[in-house]
Amino acid sequence: MLGRLNHVAIAVRDIAAASKLYRGTLGAEVSEPEALAEHGVTVVFITLPNTKIELLEPLGPDSPIAKFLEKNPDGGIHHICYEVEDILAARDRLLNSGARVLGSGAPKIGAHGKPVLFLHPKDFNGTLIELEQA
Amino acid sequence: MLGRLNHVAIAVRDIAAASKLYRGTLGAEVSEPEALAEHGVTVVFITLPNTKIELLEPLGPDSPIAKFLEKNPDGGIHHICYEVEDILAARDRLLNSGARVLGSGAPKIGAHGKPVLFLHPKDFNGTLIELEQA
Repeated sequence: MLGRLNHVAIAVRDIAAASKLYRGTLGAEVSEPEALAEHGVTVVFITLPNTKIELLEPLGPDSPIAKFLEKNPDGGIHHICYEVEDILAARDRLLNSGARVLGSGAPKIGAHGKPVLFLHPKDFNGTLIELEQA
Repeated sequence: MLGRLNHVAIAVRDIAAASKLYRGTLGAEVSEPEALAEHGVTVVFITLPNTKIELLEPLGPDSPIAKFLEKNPDGGIHHICYEVEDILAARDRLLNSGARVLGSGAPKIGAHGKPVLFLHPKDFNGTLIELEQA
């Protein structure tokens, strides 16, 4: 079921400083920041040869990463995203195995304009997993 | 400087249960557990089409992931590993930028038999970064 690792998402307090670090110190290809108001984050994409890293900075009062940054003031790895071919088939397989899908269970349109679901970290070794229909 | 994402490492309490979860529920290709006494971990490799996930379970009393699991009882993402062409050139570039390299600064031989270094999470958005000479 699991396909490519689509991205690793890192929550940061200051996306300008984090971009400078990845572009300068680490010598990576880093996009310009993009504000995604409907997702409550400003995002930067770091392009690696085989996948990408996404830096996320909170945007607005109800950002989904605000609490994470309260608990992890330096920032940290927030989630990993795996691609699946069919998000509904993936969801049903997970629910049949007893794993919990966050929210209503209906896929939402994610930051890349594709259907996504998030899985409960308690059911996956403390790891927040996003599934994205490739 | 940064090359491919070599792997994402996830610390787990019970590598047999975590392997079953990835193989069964998530439908991924999962290797048999391998005890790496000199690294203080038992490791399992999950092969994705573009990179891999490594599950790490503590091995022995001085495991480098024991403290992490004390703080994160469910487990969690422990580090990410980026490939670099020349580990010594990478180290010197990092030190010249004021970033901290863990340990003596001399590369060690990592779990894949290649030279590796770890960078200080405080200097990289709370993320433990491993660099591996590809």
